[in-house]
Amino acid sequence: MLVVMKSGATDQEIGRVIEAIEAAGLKAHSMPGANRTAIGITGNTGAIDSSPFSDLPGVAECVRVTKPYKLVGRELKPERTVIRIGDAEIGGDEFAIIAGVCAVESREQTFLTAAVVSEMGCKFFRGGAFKPRTSPYAFQGLGEEGLKILSDVRDQYDLKIVTEATDEPALDLVERYADVIQIGTRNMQNFSLLKRAGQARKPVLLKRGMAATIEEFLLAAEYIMSEGNYQVILCERGVRTFANHTRFTLDLSLVPAIKRISHLPIIIDPSHSTGKREKVIPLSRAGAAVGADGLLVDIHPYPERALCDGPQALLFDQFKDMVAQVRSIAAIVSGEEKKITKQTK
Amino acid sequence: MLVVMKSGATDQEIGRVIEAIEAAGLKAHSMPGANRTAIGITGNTGAIDSSPFSDLPGVAECVRVTKPYKLVGRELKPERTVIRIGDAEIGGDEFAIIAGVCAVESREQTFLTAAVVSEMGCKFFRGGAFKPRTSPYAFQGLGEEGLKILSDVRDQYDLKIVTEATDEPALDLVERYADVIQIGTRNMQNFSLLKRAGQARKPVLLKRGMAATIEEFLLAAEYIMSEGNYQVILCERGVRTFANHTRFTLDLSLVPAIKRISHLPIIIDPSHSTGKREKVIPLSRAGAAVGADGLLVDIHPYPERALCDGPQALLFDQFKDMVAQVRSIAAIVSGEEKKITKQTK
Amino acid sequence: MLVVMKSGATDQEIGRVIEAIEAAGLKAHSMPGANRTAIGITGNTGAIDSSPFSDLPGVAECVRVTKPYKLVGRELKPERTVIRIGDAEIGGDEFAIIAGVCAVESREQTFLTAAVVSEMGCKFFRGGAFKPRTSPYAFQGLGEEGLKILSDVRDQYDLKIVTEATDEPALDLVERYADVIQIGTRNMQNFSLLKRAGQARKPVLLKRGMAATIEEFLLAAEYIMSEGNYQVILCERGVRTFANHTRFTLDLSLVPAIKRISHLPIIIDPSHSTGKREKVIPLSRAGAAVGADGLLVDIHPYPERALCDGPQALLFDQFKDMVAQVRSIAAIVSGEEKKITKQTK
Amino acid sequence: MLVVMKSGATDQEIGRVIEAIEAAGLKAHSMPGANRTAIGITGNTGAIDSSPFSDLPGVAECVRVTKPYKLVGRELKPERTVIRIGDAEIGGDEFAIIAGVCAVESREQTFLTAAVVSEMGCKFFRGGAFKPRTSPYAFQGLGEEGLKILSDVRDQYDLKIVTEATDEPALDLVERYADVIQIGTRNMQNFSLLKRAGQARKPVLLKRGMAATIEEFLLAAEYIMSEGNYQVILCERGVRTFANHTRFTLDLSLVPAIKRISHLPIIIDPSHSTGKREKVIPLSRAGAAVGADGLLVDIHPYPERALCDGPQALLFDQFKDMVAQVRSIAAIVSGEEKKITKQTK
Repeated sequence: MLVVMKSGATDQEIGRVIEAIEAAGLKAHSMPGANRTAIGITGNTGAIDSSPFSDLPGVAECVRVTKPYKLVGRELKPERTVIRIGDAEIGGDEFAIIAGVCAVESREQTFLTAAVVSEMGCKFFRGGAFKPRTSPYAFQGLGEEGLKILSDVRDQYDLKIVTEATDEPALDLVERYADVIQIGTRNMQNFSLLKRAGQARKPVLLKRGMAATIEEFLLAAEYIMSEGNYQVILCERGVRTFANHTRFTLDLSLVPAIKRISHLPIIIDPSHSTGKREKVIPLSRAGAAVGADGLLVDIHPYPERALCDGPQALLFDQFKDMVAQVRSIAAIVSGEEKKITKQTK
Repeated sequence: MLVVMKSGATDQEIGRVIEAIEAAGLKAHSMPGANRTAIGITGNTGAIDSSPFSDLPGVAECVRVTKPYKLVGRELKPERTVIRIGDAEIGGDEFAIIAGVCAVESREQTFLTAAVVSEMGCKFFRGGAFKPRTSPYAFQGLGEEGLKILSDVRDQYDLKIVTEATDEPALDLVERYADVIQIGTRNMQNFSLLKRAGQARKPVLLKRGMAATIEEFLLAAEYIMSEGNYQVILCERGVRTFANHTRFTLDLSLVPAIKRISHLPIIIDPSHSTGKREKVIPLSRAGAAVGADGLLVDIHPYPERALCDGPQALLFDQFKDMVAQVRSIAAIVSGEEKKITKQTK
Repeated sequence: MLVVMKSGATDQEIGRVIEAIEAAGLKAHSMPGANRTAIGITGNTGAIDSSPFSDLPGVAECVRVTKPYKLVGRELKPERTVIRIGDAEIGGDEFAIIAGVCAVESREQTFLTAAVVSEMGCKFFRGGAFKPRTSPYAFQGLGEEGLKILSDVRDQYDLKIVTEATDEPALDLVERYADVIQIGTRNMQNFSLLKRAGQARKPVLLKRGMAATIEEFLLAAEYIMSEGNYQVILCERGVRTFANHTRFTLDLSLVPAIKRISHLPIIIDPSHSTGKREKVIPLSRAGAAVGADGLLVDIHPYPERALCDGPQALLFDQFKDMVAQVRSIAAIVSGEEKKITKQTK
Repeated sequence: MLVVMKSGATDQEIGRVIEAIEAAGLKAHSMPGANRTAIGITGNTGAIDSSPFSDLPGVAECVRVTKPYKLVGRELKPERTVIRIGDAEIGGDEFAIIAGVCAVESREQTFLTAAVVSEMGCKFFRGGAFKPRTSPYAFQGLGEEGLKILSDVRDQYDLKIVTEATDEPALDLVERYADVIQIGTRNMQNFSLLKRAGQARKPVLLKRGMAATIEEFLLAAEYIMSEGNYQVILCERGVRTFANHTRFTLDLSLVPAIKRISHLPIIIDPSHSTGKREKVIPLSRAGAAVGADGLLVDIHPYPERALCDGPQALLFDQFKDMVAQVRSIAAIVSGEEKKITKQTK
């Protein structure tokens, strides 16, 4: 259920509704919007009786949520969520470019790359310290040592750090060292990890599972939000299909589909989806054009020596070209997107 | 095999090579390029002996083709193919917008739509007279009567007509009335129809099968070309996946993949792939951004009354918005694409 | 709509209903069953008024069909359809083994194979004279010469001939020479060919498209039946998925799914689906176990020299083993299947 | 690398090789077979020098493993692995039926079900105490209380308990209370959990991810084995495809494919793959017929009241029918399978 407050409801009135919800043994999720605050209720096992809440001062109405998800939906929060970290944001007016190395391999490789990311005016740096690898015998990342390098990158370049947590102990560390906690595609339905991420106080970047439906993807985000962390960024990274000219099939139709039903920002990953450098720039442009809020891209100073996913990493010059192109396209879309959202049914 | 002529080879020298190929009971496919002409050889059952050709005057070298396709590949023709019909072109500098009605339902509906297409400066009009329908009980199109309406549209608006041929008798009619012969996704491996299209003297727009690999798609184009019709336009229209938020999953990664190995132009169909109006504009933009040479889009004066695929048809105002957005993006990509092609390996 | 006759309705009463339907400009499809005859009506563009039919003598009731398909469904004909050709049948008590060569390559190869098929007591022989090939440069079959060889096989071994028609001219020939007309997976939505097959007076074996849903598959069969040919055998031959350990993924769950909604027999093709000999026997057994009515299998006297799909052809000894195993399993299933059909909702 | 011992090698000689491997900082995995013992080596980062091992007494040869997996492959252990728990086994001569409830809901429901499983002579009981659920608001299982009920089932009926561990804390409990630790499809690439399972001293039943390739599946098993737990049972439970007549598409072709390259036993799950009761019996039969070593099936005393996946649970009478049918088929396959393995290349 969803308690919608009147547009002029006071903080005190909102507080009183939250208290009443919690007194009933339920969990209250307050979502302030431009015009009104709505409060989602979770923790119930059956239907909720609305009578204890509907007559409280400041309450406009109690709405039964018919979707399987409650907190990710636009019913609860019609305005789009903007994730803000210092002066950087995802989901706002600026197209967010999260660039960096697939795996942190060394201080030198990481800093060389960060310098270019910073030079291009990007605000986020990605780099993997814990790498989920298909084979137990493949390079698994530098672990905490990698996180320290990333932390030093932040100090030096003022870049926000995005890095993956592959399990709970890793998440503890990532939460300490990084700015955004990434949950990878193979963990999209690792529900314990999602719950732990929901208890973190930092934004979570959640990648779509490689065969996840839109509902499963949103419910994975719901796991995080139901624990009280409402700062979730969705990421489309390609799905598994029969197509063999690409590693995964980047499903750009997901972007408008998500925007219709969820307030969460959504970005794309053209690097891991295609697995091939020459497709990364065209699909980055396509991602900006389709209306994504940003992208996640791999670059490398010398990809032929990369320990992980070298063939997909852009060279520095390619990266610079890409950033320029993507920004021009995002600028075109930015104004248009709002118009369209209004017009289309 | 492939006979590459010297850059200064005369028409006479080229003619003599073709004669020698035909004298050997084989078929010669001459592909003139900016710098040199190459002549593809088909019709052989085993390997071809190059000795009768390699010493003819004007021949630079004889190259064995290792791919399963010969005529669609860039080995034979490194320059991109541009399809020209009067003053209109596909694959050239201008992004081609082929807009119109899914099915020709009436003269009024068709002319209303054509007026808008023409007003926006688009040069191609699409409309189905023969509709391949999943159910035998669904509206199957107006047939020749529909073709006549389309022909009148051309006369009135100077729009080039693109329409589907669903079988050989339909192709005979389409060849007579239209400018571009469309082969639909369900017929991508209707090899008899492909061969018949290869004997036509008008360009063929070939849609990818809904579960076709890139190799199968190119080999379907090869069927057409091997009969002597080299004017083929490829069209990505979505593939079948588990995803249920979209009718088909538009596979934009195919566009750069095709451009690497084939000289043929490739366009996208955002209408049939998504099946939903609200996704058509975002994916049209994405198609322009990924580097497609054009798109095929459905519009309708009153989609709620359409006999076929109404929910995917853009309203006229949406169409106008879309055209403006797509052109801005295509302009950005157009110059960039060439740079990238050079840089990326 | 569906006119259900009373159980004691006379031929004259049935004839009168058919006349009334045709007089209304519609098409009548009479389906006699064990207890009652039902008459399907097609050819209508909107809803049909039942009043002219419901009061005719012998009519029990008029039923509106809610499914998109009418003639393939169990609403019209609850009893399972059995296809009978001389003493052979598909869909009856005996598990039908349709064995033979992928492509007829020579009289010797075909007769060697037919001798083994006959020796094992199988009643159907398969062999391709018209081969739909992905590449225009691959062996396309012997054509009419191949059909003549097959016809001689029938004369010598009393085997019923199953062979593919790839287009209308081929269908004309196949109808003349063969006993069962096969429509291949790539032509499952070649609607002109389906209609032509519907006008043939011989049974049609229809293969599922490689990405066809169950509804699309049934509607393809409906195309054939709506033209008046009710002898359709469905064939599951594997669908396209991401899995790369098999050529296609044999979808055995389709068999019970089809049996719930359609009266048509369904067989499986373990050869083309797997593409690898070592999987053919296990999946043949699985097909018999899941309740299929038969299978279609490739064998070859010397597969290493086969012109088409050699790696999937069983050796003769393997074929004999397979037949024995499959028959033992089919015998177990045969009785059980009926029990289950009754029990399960 | 793989050190193959001579057929008469003594335990002492084997021990000396293991010592030498460990002295080199590597990990030794000894796999005794019928004729010879092979010792897999993991823990290396680059290629291993075989010279320190090849001349040790009892060593026949050192073999470089070319596959990405080492311990799951038949190169290391040609004999099939049989998992033994008391008098029960999986992978041996008897077809293993692991039957029970999807979720342990109550002592009564669990004991009612266990009584039937025991009555039918099955040796394994399944029941979920920790349920991975797509929605955070769905019933998540009884946790340790459920494990205690399962433990009591074992005491009463002498059934071996198979139950899922969804995270590390759950695995600690499952290892204590159960006989077989199940890792679910959503955790197939939860590498931390796989490693933890590899440190357990009880067999692990590993379900295939819903979009996992055969190589990814085997490498997931390799993660478990590389930690020293060699008792892994693989389980095919359906993959995600476009097909909408079934929840997942059961990929039975995986069974013969796995048996060719791995020594591990493989079973199937007809309940979760189809999601519909009426398909469970046909696909159970198909699983036995294709050569699987067993199956995992849901039953329920009153499925309409089940808290989880009721529509897929067999009724008790259906279960009894299924067991009888499956055993008849498995008996046919059992002898045949060995013959085929020898014949087919």
